[in-house]
Amino acid sequence: VAGDVSMSKELIGAVTYAKGFSASGVRAGIKESGEDIALIVSEVPASAAGLFTTNLIKAAPVNVSQARLPRSGGRAIVANSGNANACTGEQGMADAQKMTSLVSSLLGVDDNDVLVASTGVIGHMLPMDKIASGIEKAVNALSPDGGMSALRGIMTTDTRPKESWASVEINGVEVRIGGIAKGAGMIDPNVATMLSFITTDAAITPELLDLAIRKSADVSYNCLTVDGDTSTNDTVIILANGMSGCRMIDRENSDFEIFSKALDTVTIDLAKQIAADGEGATKIVEVEVVGARSADDCKKIAKTIANSPLVKTALYGSDPNWGRVLAAAGRAGVAFDPNSVDLLFGQIKLVESGAPVPFDQAAANKYLQGQEIIIRVKVGDGPDSARVWTCDFSYDYVKINAEYHT
Amino acid sequence: VAGDVSMSKELIGAVTYAKGFSASGVRAGIKESGEDIALIVSEVPASAAGLFTTNLIKAAPVNVSQARLPRSGGRAIVANSGNANACTGEQGMADAQKMTSLVSSLLGVDDNDVLVASTGVIGHMLPMDKIASGIEKAVNALSPDGGMSALRGIMTTDTRPKESWASVEINGVEVRIGGIAKGAGMIDPNVATMLSFITTDAAITPELLDLAIRKSADVSYNCLTVDGDTSTNDTVIILANGMSGCRMIDRENSDFEIFSKALDTVTIDLAKQIAADGEGATKIVEVEVVGARSADDCKKIAKTIANSPLVKTALYGSDPNWGRVLAAAGRAGVAFDPNSVDLLFGQIKLVESGAPVPFDQAAANKYLQGQEIIIRVKVGDGPDSARVWTCDFSYDYVKINAEYHT
Repeated sequence: VAGDVSMSKELIGAVTYAKGFSASGVRAGIKESGEDIALIVSEVPASAAGLFTTNLIKAAPVNVSQARLPRSGGRAIVANSGNANACTGEQGMADAQKMTSLVSSLLGVDDNDVLVASTGVIGHMLPMDKIASGIEKAVNALSPDGGMSALRGIMTTDTRPKESWASVEINGVEVRIGGIAKGAGMIDPNVATMLSFITTDAAITPELLDLAIRKSADVSYNCLTVDGDTSTNDTVIILANGMSGCRMIDRENSDFEIFSKALDTVTIDLAKQIAADGEGATKIVEVEVVGARSADDCKKIAKTIANSPLVKTALYGSDPNWGRVLAAAGRAGVAFDPNSVDLLFGQIKLVESGAPVPFDQAAANKYLQGQEIIIRVKVGDGPDSARVWTCDFSYDYVKINAEYHT
Repeated sequence: VAGDVSMSKELIGAVTYAKGFSASGVRAGIKESGEDIALIVSEVPASAAGLFTTNLIKAAPVNVSQARLPRSGGRAIVANSGNANACTGEQGMADAQKMTSLVSSLLGVDDNDVLVASTGVIGHMLPMDKIASGIEKAVNALSPDGGMSALRGIMTTDTRPKESWASVEINGVEVRIGGIAKGAGMIDPNVATMLSFITTDAAITPELLDLAIRKSADVSYNCLTVDGDTSTNDTVIILANGMSGCRMIDRENSDFEIFSKALDTVTIDLAKQIAADGEGATKIVEVEVVGARSADDCKKIAKTIANSPLVKTALYGSDPNWGRVLAAAGRAGVAFDPNSVDLLFGQIKLVESGAPVPFDQAAANKYLQGQEIIIRVKVGDGPDSARVWTCDFSYDYVKINAEYHT
């Protein structure tokens, strides 16, 4: 049925799920072991759009890719793990550009149609010899079945591969969307990088693709927080090559809505997988806030709760500590009436109209011992809402981040 | 010499150091053990001023005291530990007012001249029977030597008593200032309360005292962060009774500057003691930022660095992870040129003009193994600066906050 979104949890190598994409992941020897170069290529020129870190300290590949997007004619994404190419000055910029020109000359495409991303340690120059031979290997290894190896090529300390895919019918034509991701906020002990690459065979203009990925990020990647730290390298890139044969999406019509809805299922699924794989995480936490004066205000409150170390340690301890949640809401910098606050853990109400209410302590503890926790906070009667995802804060978070040495 | 500030680390019961103050700390049975009611009284009416939490969720005693300050004629501060009287609705407001009226009727002073503060668990009604008999005991126990017992009366999970004092000559007259404090950001596993009470025998109008404590807080308490969480109960109250006999400070003249400088030494010393006693802290960390476009911008950057869990865990691990410091600075929401950033741990320079420079790794590790760490970040050539204090983030922070159960 048009607009119905199909999804699956099976690992399929999602970045080659859509028609006309090939990919590869190879070992260049940048990180200690495993694939560390990923390449994703569209058979034909694709609309391309991207989103990048808002950190003032931006890695070289972020500067290179950001300047090239959105664009028509996008052909490839090349990424490396093990070295962030951040705080590397002019040499770093030259190296990032060299990565794209190595790919473009081997593929015989325009240099500006290649995008680049990096993740890994900060402040070290890229080993360009290894990168160059790695890129050659990656081009030779390109395959329509290469999605899984490309996914492995961008992983760093991730404990699980993260991919998601969806298909949707637009005017009787099946359109596919597939995405991969690595990291979260500060999942990597040294840097802080989230990379996500999405491919689709939808036909959509660069402008509309840019709009779609921005709106989608607002309800997915931008609702994600592990510890409030944002990376120098965060990058989301989407390629849409039109090979599904669906009619061109060139305005905000019902086709755009159908495509966007399918895209959201992929990006939200990826965001939740990233939160669940936060460093040391033992559970995924969704914070829903409703009733502030705007959706932005709701998100501010939700993020402040989700980033509170006190809330996160209480969740690790499976403690229904509503006082910490309220105190975090109260310092979010958003106006609301403290006497109108309701608070629930799952379906268990702990606070009504700003005051504690009796609740079943055993049931609350049992709920909080689960692996998926939902905290719901109502701060007023407005129609707006927001939800964000995070994880709890365990001994292992401190262990991973304290014992890592630069 | 006029303006020279004398200080000491000896525990003297600082809140009765200035002339004309008596105090007591007694056990009322609110918390599990130890003194849990503190009372501080001025022999004569005093100028009084205060600062309170900016959290939207304010405890009842905060609302009561805030409405009464600044004022002339202040006579007493009553505080309890073990129960925050927060999220307690109208009953909580009545109970906070009852605490002041119990004191005022026993002392024979005006009710509005008594201030109140609480710290402890959120969401429970005060045990008013215990409070009432405790206050009676506290009034009977008042003594010019009661400063130390009053200090014990406000402590919760503090591992060390925190007090500071200074004396300064104003126009040939010795003026004394003494202060006590408890907690830090979220030092208490359940709430988040910093209480600080300061007494002085300076003669100063309520308006100027209000100005002095606000300016002083900006370079002390407001530069303090343990985990970014702010309490429902944070309270600073200062009483100035004029009994030194110094001439009245009624404008921003040199006497005001001398008094303010001495006050700053007390509040900064208390703030640093609070940071050093953060939950699970193994070291105190000072973050200095210079060169942003305003002092406020410098403070924003410094606080973002000081609150970064990644920076704090790296410091716990004694790792000179400058990349995390830069990444935190870059997401502070303040504009600066990434290529103009210098970064030092103590005297060891790790980053110059935005790029890493070779440094003595062994010396850096040794420096970071110390108990007092200074991180210096220069982000531009402006004259403004800010410094904030925090602590590192250890296994024990998670342990204390996860294992506490409501």
